Amino acid sequence: MKKILILGAGRSSSSLIEYLLELAVKNNYEVTVADASLDLAQQKTHKHPNSRAIFLDSGDELKTHTEIQRADIVVSMLPAFLHAGIATQCVKLKKSMVTASYVSPEMKALDEDAKKAGIILMNESGLDPGIDHASAMKIIDDIKSQGGNLTVFKSYTGGLIAPESDDNPWGYKFTWAPRNVILAGQGTARYLENGKYAFIPYTKLYTRTEKIHFDTLGDFEGYANRDSLSYRSIYGIENVDTILRGTLRKAGYCEAWNVFVQLGMTDDTYLIPESEKLSIREVVESFLPAGTGEVKNRLAGYLGIPVKGEVMDKLEWLGLFEDTKLNVKNASPALILQTLLEDKWKLKEGDIDMIVMQHQFEYNLKGKTHKLQSSLVVKGDDAIHTAMAKTVGYPVGIITKLILEEKIKLTGVHTPTVREIYEPLLTELERLGVRFVEKEY
Amino acid sequence: MKKILILGAGRSSSSLIEYLLELAVKNNYEVTVADASLDLAQQKTHKHPNSRAIFLDSGDELKTHTEIQRADIVVSMLPAFLHAGIATQCVKLKKSMVTASYVSPEMKALDEDAKKAGIILMNESGLDPGIDHASAMKIIDDIKSQGGNLTVFKSYTGGLIAPESDDNPWGYKFTWAPRNVILAGQGTARYLENGKYAFIPYTKLYTRTEKIHFDTLGDFEGYANRDSLSYRSIYGIENVDTILRGTLRKAGYCEAWNVFVQLGMTDDTYLIPESEKLSIREVVESFLPAGTGEVKNRLAGYLGIPVKGEVMDKLEWLGLFEDTKLNVKNASPALILQTLLEDKWKLKEGDIDMIVMQHQFEYNLKGKTHKLQSSLVVKGDDAIHTAMAKTVGYPVGIITKLILEEKIKLTGVHTPTVREIYEPLLTELERLGVRFVEKEY
Repeated sequence: MKKILILGAGRSSSSLIEYLLELAVKNNYEVTVADASLDLAQQKTHKHPNSRAIFLDSGDELKTHTEIQRADIVVSMLPAFLHAGIATQCVKLKKSMVTASYVSPEMKALDEDAKKAGIILMNESGLDPGIDHASAMKIIDDIKSQGGNLTVFKSYTGGLIAPESDDNPWGYKFTWAPRNVILAGQGTARYLENGKYAFIPYTKLYTRTEKIHFDTLGDFEGYANRDSLSYRSIYGIENVDTILRGTLRKAGYCEAWNVFVQLGMTDDTYLIPESEKLSIREVVESFLPAGTGEVKNRLAGYLGIPVKGEVMDKLEWLGLFEDTKLNVKNASPALILQTLLEDKWKLKEGDIDMIVMQHQFEYNLKGKTHKLQSSLVVKGDDAIHTAMAKTVGYPVGIITKLILEEKIKLTGVHTPTVREIYEPLLTELERLGVRFVEKEY
Repeated sequence: MKKILILGAGRSSSSLIEYLLELAVKNNYEVTVADASLDLAQQKTHKHPNSRAIFLDSGDELKTHTEIQRADIVVSMLPAFLHAGIATQCVKLKKSMVTASYVSPEMKALDEDAKKAGIILMNESGLDPGIDHASAMKIIDDIKSQGGNLTVFKSYTGGLIAPESDDNPWGYKFTWAPRNVILAGQGTARYLENGKYAFIPYTKLYTRTEKIHFDTLGDFEGYANRDSLSYRSIYGIENVDTILRGTLRKAGYCEAWNVFVQLGMTDDTYLIPESEKLSIREVVESFLPAGTGEVKNRLAGYLGIPVKGEVMDKLEWLGLFEDTKLNVKNASPALILQTLLEDKWKLKEGDIDMIVMQHQFEYNLKGKTHKLQSSLVVKGDDAIHTAMAKTVGYPVGIITKLILEEKIKLTGVHTPTVREIYEPLLTELERLGVRFVEKEY
């Protein structure tokens, strides 16, 4: 019997646990789910005969040690900062480990030790990072192996609401951590375009979007992520002329979101005094030059947006000009905005989410320029089996299985950028309905 | 003989040292100037018979102790972070101390001990903070003592080039630390207007200026400082409806500076890869959307500024669209901009600087609304006796004298916001030509 230890039974563990339990009888797995809430661990294991649900506090080093010792492989779905500590124990006990998180410097430092121990520390095995690496590298390696020369690589991902549940003018609901959505894009986006470095400061980010089309879904818009440049070395494409990674929103979202950026309402660096006394309209007013007249008209004049139009429709739908008090004490502007949006953008019963991803490639092959795109659309099944839970959990589960079956024999610190990993991973993902569609264009 | 110890002989100590040496014979002072450069200390004391120039490393605690022990009063013109350590020694040795820096939490914590020791730890005794406090509090206290009710307080300060040396379209040269000018305004300006909190994010700061007129000099523009709100308690005007502190630039400066803000060229948080290889035009281009045509025209289109006009004149005068390489390795955008401006905005021989300050008050007295403004203009005499050196050094020197003469008898941690300090300070400043002109308007 192969013993799998899964640390953490939170939202993104659901599909992972189910995937491994479905294989458990046939493959002779014992799946232990450990969480600081025993109740949660029990919910997720459904009393499956091949499962164990146990209480485990992440601070309890002794018990963690005992459980790792007992296991054949460890999957950590805990917060990323805990991974290096667990990985250190895994190295000592010679157990392979899988996570969905970025390789931290501490993790990277364990590479030699992991190789000596004969184990793999497998990271970035979720959606983004994870499926993005695997699906992009498959095409990049194919182009290279044909003798092609990659000139352009762009890649966009979005976690959104599915069209069938999309019933608001923003085309957006919170399907993932709201705070990250409010603060998204702060800093400066850095990428490469036509061989030149390019920089977009936050204040311009939501005005410099690119239209991204999905045949089955229509138009989205992508804004650049902070770091695209490092992907040149990660993907081994140092000589590419254009590289950009971005985030997808429904068309029209960014122009309206830019209103909050320009006002200063996404700022999380200071507190608004007596914030609990202010209505949302008064908060908006505090960002406008002093004046008389309706706040709505003053805002439109200040930012140069039409008083009637799609942007204003979105703002009004949020109730931005209403007398509503949010009653948040010691709130930053960002927290006030988050509080408003958490009410307006919350999922209704039966709402399902959706993951969209699109890679775009341009390459020269035998004197001809080719354009290729590869697109993924995954919809959630329900509130538990969300698209996010599936696209994070499946690849983690599949890679765990592949390591147990010794189809992945690598040792040391890895990510799914190598053929030995991404090829069987993508094949199994397809079987589970996570399927990229390629087209020349 | 009264012994004065001055720590630090840098730029802003010149007028301070001269002021005290001029009084030295008549008042029987010995003035010791201590610096990590003995040469600099000697230059500043001019071999005056009442002076001592000594070498002192700020890390040499023993010698510092000996010198403080020897002195009757200590003046620290060292970097602000060193003040708390020196103040601790002053408390132990029962010597009063004067600095031009803001009261730090560590300094504030010494208040009780200083009172017990019977000494004063006098801070914020320069220009801003310093002269601003004294001159504003004099009028605020006058209004209060007449039974008036202050409703509006605004205060603007600028360190600029004098009109006679102003020969560039920006009306600006570096008369003080360049880096602070490049980064000025980052964060969010917070103030109170008509009883309501008001916030201006950096991206809008340079568009929301106020015209500030000086009868003798013409128009300037003021942009809001980050923190105006705390001055309500500092000045004891908790019920004021409008409070704003700001920074002055020559009219027209802010609209052009906003180009750099919007492009992202004042960002100091990341490095431009291979920055030494780029010309200034290529750096500008890296902030523009990809395109063809002249960088100048693309910039104008992107930011919506006229291709011909005052803003573009300012940018072209800087050589922003030229092929010049700046050769700065590992540079942030802010450092590249600073390098360009340090060349263009440097002082020529004979150039003199200028300090401008204006307070604006509105108050109700016996049913009538009054508007009062109080303005200061100080010009430098030469490259050593700059307006900045005088307006920082004189008040520090005057307050040192007032403490030695026991005209200031306060003990504990103080700033020049109380009548016992600001009244004799302002009188002596007037004698030295640092004179506020008041007018009702």
